[in-house]
Parts: sequence; structure tokens; C-alpha cells
Amino acid sequence: MKPQPLKGFRDFLPPDAIKRQFVIGKIKEVFERFGFDPLETPALEYAETLLGKYGDEADKLLYLFEDRGGRRVGLRYDQTVPASRVVAQYQHQLPTPFKRYQIQPVWRAENPQRGRFREFLQCDADIFGSDSALADAEVIALAAETLRFLGVPNVRILLNDRTLFGNAPPAAIATVDKLKKIGEVGVQRALEAKGFDASLLAAIRANKPSPRLAEVIGNAAALGVARESLVFEPTLARGLDYYTGVIFEIELGGYDAGSVCGGGRYDGLIGQFTGTDVPAVGFAFGFDRLMEALEQLNLLPAAQTATRVLVTVFSDEFLPRSLALTSRLRDNGINAEVPLETAKLDRQLKYADRKGIPFVVIAGPEEQKRGVVTLKNMRDKTQEEVALESVVEKLK
Amino acid sequence: MKPQPLKGFRDFLPPDAIKRQFVIGKIKEVFERFGFDPLETPALEYAETLLGKYGDEADKLLYLFEDRGGRRVGLRYDQTVPASRVVAQYQHQLPTPFKRYQIQPVWRAENPQRGRFREFLQCDADIFGSDSALADAEVIALAAETLRFLGVPNVRILLNDRTLFGNAPPAAIATVDKLKKIGEVGVQRALEAKGFDASLLAAIRANKPSPRLAEVIGNAAALGVARESLVFEPTLARGLDYYTGVIFEIELGGYDAGSVCGGGRYDGLIGQFTGTDVPAVGFAFGFDRLMEALEQLNLLPAAQTATRVLVTVFSDEFLPRSLALTSRLRDNGINAEVPLETAKLDRQLKYADRKGIPFVVIAGPEEQKRGVVTLKNMRDKTQEEVALESVVEKLK
Repeated sequence: MKPQPLKGFRDFLPPDAIKRQFVIGKIKEVFERFGFDPLETPALEYAETLLGKYGDEADKLLYLFEDRGGRRVGLRYDQTVPASRVVAQYQHQLPTPFKRYQIQPVWRAENPQRGRFREFLQCDADIFGSDSALADAEVIALAAETLRFLGVPNVRILLNDRTLFGNAPPAAIATVDKLKKIGEVGVQRALEAKGFDASLLAAIRANKPSPRLAEVIGNAAALGVARESLVFEPTLARGLDYYTGVIFEIELGGYDAGSVCGGGRYDGLIGQFTGTDVPAVGFAFGFDRLMEALEQLNLLPAAQTATRVLVTVFSDEFLPRSLALTSRLRDNGINAEVPLETAKLDRQLKYADRKGIPFVVIAGPEEQKRGVVTLKNMRDKTQEEVALESVVEKLK
Repeated sequence: MKPQPLKGFRDFLPPDAIKRQFVIGKIKEVFERFGFDPLETPALEYAETLLGKYGDEADKLLYLFEDRGGRRVGLRYDQTVPASRVVAQYQHQLPTPFKRYQIQPVWRAENPQRGRFREFLQCDADIFGSDSALADAEVIALAAETLRFLGVPNVRILLNDRTLFGNAPPAAIATVDKLKKIGEVGVQRALEAKGFDASLLAAIRANKPSPRLAEVIGNAAALGVARESLVFEPTLARGLDYYTGVIFEIELGGYDAGSVCGGGRYDGLIGQFTGTDVPAVGFAFGFDRLMEALEQLNLLPAAQTATRVLVTVFSDEFLPRSLALTSRLRDNGINAEVPLETAKLDRQLKYADRKGIPFVVIAGPEEQKRGVVTLKNMRDKTQEEVALESVVEKLK
């Protein structure tokens, strides 16, 4: 058999996995900085937990199957619904409001295409149990601060309030939401084709921010979000069925392929589990798009490997010395390795080069005599002699 | 519907998720210290990638189903087989040897019982492409160092070499492997019941370490593993079919519920994908058992939340001041939050208490006049006045 992953699924080899881990680490750091705690839920849920929450189109993309015990089960489609299930289930045990983040893969049986995969990571932060405008502002401030912390210089936070659509039919709103994709004339034609009044677009564009949205914007600014990055966008609708109030999307300056973050308030979802509504507001970063944007903005580390130094082995006789030095480096917090096979120095250097290890230590009989090692910088091809006892400090 | 996870699956609420993330972070740190880089593979693989690799019993525990495109697919059962698929697929692109770690959930349709779940995390580290004894020693040293780094004071690394079993039948070896569980007489009886010679147990117990195993032990000691923790155990067999050489398991002093780590050499697995064997050696930490052991050894952090301080809001009028202080704390790297709902101080303190936030800042009109805040320690119920400009330093 040919070794390959399934279509729409990806392997992340170390150079990519390192970049992903770097970004995940930063995201977690900021999420916790804002008082959000981690939550983990299972990959599989009862099918009935997932079905009927996202809309009919999405239901068709669920990975559903029957397990060995005959239960209908499904793979996580997003993290909002499993988190809502958790909130409903443990409501008497959790603090109120409950601020949690979740960084886990989700699965959708989409038609794979550029930038769209069947397995992808979502980074969610939500607040359950508060309907205050400050809660909306807090998640918006969190999303903005996360991007700032990742080094993104310019963001546009597009905001709207779903209640401003009044009783306009969902299909009409979904059409207006396509303004950026198909243009003004395109939307008007599409509205008419679906039997709606083409003037709906102009009416929606004439909306003013609701008092609630104005309050959210004010609070977000008080929490440190640059006022000029908060932009009212009356045609913004967002796809998912469950939003009920303020919604937002974030676009990055210098990256035009779409928003990297979207969210809003959804006060009716948890009630679907318990019969009692629990207010909720939050967002998710689409991790793939965020990675693409960060790559394009040159904000990702260049390292191909986490290893900082390769301690070469001059000959079998010198192996114990190289092992001891490697151990010493590791004990001092330096990511170090030693060649595992007996090989000429050439091949050892080739390994370092191939893996992208930035430094190599050479310690042969000459160096031993003088109590030094040769420290080779693999990037700029320079080398210097360093006293054995200074190697740790030099590499730190 | 009653909100609940599937049987054998678990939610990890923040207090548990925080502990898990803490341990995962430590494990990653040590794995990278030893030159292992992260790899991520998909949750789903072609069924044929998984089937026939683990043995018949294990094949029955695979989560297999047909996807919407009619493909037979399966959820990851372990990380060794997907990693072997990756090595076979990208062999001309990866450095040799390829040192990778993987920390991902796996799924097995086991009968759930105490400590056995259908979804659980594995932490793997393996070296592909080296058959040297130093490679075996390196993964053993890595496992030992990881436990040391987690604070475990005593480990026993049980070692054996599968080649020492000669041509004894696998079913007989599996029986001998049960020595600890069912005792000497139990093993002898079980051997006879299966038609084997009961003296096989004595013969295996009389084995001496192979020269290869002796070399591995020597190298592990050279890499810093305490010599007395490396123990030859001639009856150790390990379950999985694919091991071919040195194998090991690690037990922790003060924790008797079984080994927390197991691994060994498996030189034939990758050849099942490519027809050309690639030598491989590695191990996995069973994360649940490791967590249980660390809990029992009192080595896990006590924190219920990542939040360090709650900045209370005296009244609506004081909200901007509390938001500004919260932002300042966050900007200085302190995990801080502010109550999202208007509430009496009492209720704000109750929230901090419920969530387990260790510190609370109170800043009312009295404090404002004097340019101070009251810093309350929620654990020992003490409080002190701190100058506004010193709050950051005090909380660091």
C-alpha cells in the first residue's frame, strides 16, 4: 500500500509543527492572561448532541457513524456546541460566569480545496453566563490583544448587532452578507432572484450601531482596544444560525484572504440542552488562516528544529566525553543532541545542516588538550574556539 | 436530551485541564531538550494503514467506519503506526535519524473500567533510522529525565531484550509476562493449560542480559541515568506484536498501579509500508496513569485556575478605573480579570473564591484618595494596602 493520509487531512512535519506550537503557545498565554481557563472535551459526542445546532447545510458535513455498541456518534464539528453541552451538564459546579478556552481539532466532511481541510484546529474563547456588554467587550479585547501579542500591526474589527436586521428573513441576510464577495449589484440581483426587495441592501447599509453595540465598543476601548480599529459594518451577518446579538470578525492589514477570527453572542444555544437559556459570547480563531496570515506577515519563527546544538563525536573513544557534554548542556536548559551512529565528521555536519540545527560543537584531541571546543555557527558558517566551561553560557 | 459525554469519554474541566497542560508542557520541554521535534498526524487514517499492525485483539478495538466518500477509515489507535506511515511516506525529506515526539489523543473501543478509557492521551518519543545501541539508550535516558524533571524521586526501569526469548511461542511469552499479576504458580499452571512446558518460566528467569542490552544500559548510564534504576527483568515481554529488540517499562516508587511508560525497539514496522525496513526505537507515556501517579506523589500544581488576581469593581463609576488597572496588570504579564456583571463586593469575592483565584484587588473611593489598593489573599484570608504603582511588582 502507498503510505498517505486521507484526502483533506494533513501531516505536520517538525518545521510546520514547531510554528504551530509556537502560535498555540502564544494564544494560550494571552487567553490565560485574560482569565480564561482551559477546557477539554472529547472528539466524539452523541450524534444528537451535534445535530440541529449548526443549520441543515452543516449537519450534512458532520462525520457521523455507529460505534461498536450501536450508538450514533459524531466527531466534533466545532467547540461551541460541546462547550455548551458541558455548561449545561456541569452548571452547578462551574463558576458563573464561566470563562473557558479550547484549542482542539474539529472535523468537517467538506470538499477539500485550497485552504479548506477536513481536519483543522480551532482556538475558541467564550464566556458563559453573562449577558453584560462588558462580556462582549472582553472577548473582543481578548481577540485583539492575542493578535497584537503575535506581532500583528494592524487589525480591523468589523462589528454588527444581529438584532439590527429586525425581522428580515435569514436567506435575505445571508445574501447581504455576501457584499464583499459579489459586490453591490451582485447582492441586489441575488436578492431579487430570491424574491426579496433589492432595496433591503440600502436599508441595512443605512443602519446605525445599536445602543448595545455602542456600549460594547466603548468598553472594548476602555479595555485597551484601539478605537480606530473598531469598525461598524452593518452588512456583517456571519454564517452560523445560533448568533443572537453583537457579532464581529477580524481582518488583518496586509492579509486579504478573509477574516482570521469571528464570533459573537449566542444566548439561545445552551437552552437547547437544558430548556433554560444561558447567555454566551465568544469567538474562534481559524487557525489555518491565522497561520497563513502570520506567515505572510513574516511573524513566524524561522527555526526548522527545536534543537539548538549538535555535539559531534570525534571517534568512539571520545563518545563518553561527547555524551557528558551533551548531558551538561541539557541540564542547563539547552536543547542538545549527539549523533547516534558512528560517522565521519562530514556526515555529522550534514545531519545538523539537514535538520537545521544552528550550532555544532566539535571536540577532538586537539581541543581536549587545550580545554576548549570549536563552536560552529551553521548559518553564517563561522566558527570560534570556546573554553569548555563557557560553552553553556555561550549557547544560552 | 440529557447533556452527557459518551461512555468511556471524558470532559476535563479547568482544574483538571490545567494540571494536564502543566504536565504536557513539562514533557514537551524535556523532549525538545533531547533534540526531539514535534510531529502531528491526523486523527483519521485509511483503515488499511491501521489494520494488521497491532495484533488481532487490538484490531477489534479500532474505531472503524465508512466516511461520506465510501472510504474505510479509522481513528488513531496509537501514534507509532501513523508515525511509521509518515516516515515511510516522507523518508527522502526527513533527516536521518528522525527524532520526533507526538502528544495526541488515541481512541480504543475498550470496555471502560477504572483507569481505562476510550479516548486517552499518549506522549510518544521515537527515533527512526538508527539501529545503534546509543539510540535505545537515548530514548531510555529521555524517559527517565522526563520523570526526574516532573519531580519523581524514584524510578525503576525494567529492561529486557526480546531476542532472549529465542523461538519460544508468542502465546507462551505472553503468559510468562503475567508473572507479576498471577504469580509463579499461576504462570506455570497457565503455561501447562495452554500446552506449554511449565519449566519455560524458570528457563526465561535464568536468562542473562544480551550483549546488546548490556551496551544499552552502559550508554544510558553515560547519558546520566542512575545505574541502580536500570534493572534487567527477563520475564518482561510487553504486549504489542511489533517489538524486535530491547524493550522497557518504567515503574515509579510510591505508585503501585503499574508502569507509566513503556517502549522498545521495533525494526520491522515501517517495512510493512514500504517493503524496506527502517530501524526504530521509542516509547510512550500512558498519560492517565502518569497523571494518577503524579497526583499520588503530590507533584501536581494546586491551582484551580490560571487567573492570579480579580480586580473588583467598587461601583459603576469606578469601572473605568478597574478596567484600566486590569489592563495594566495584563500588560505586565499577570493573569487578571474583572467582574463582568455589576454586583456587590460580596458576590465578587464569592466568584473569586469559587473559581479559586488566589488574590483580589479592592479599590474604592477611600483607596483612590490615598493612591493605594487593598490586596486580599484569598487563601490565608489576610489583606494589606499596596501603593497603586507597586501592585504589579507585588503580584509578580
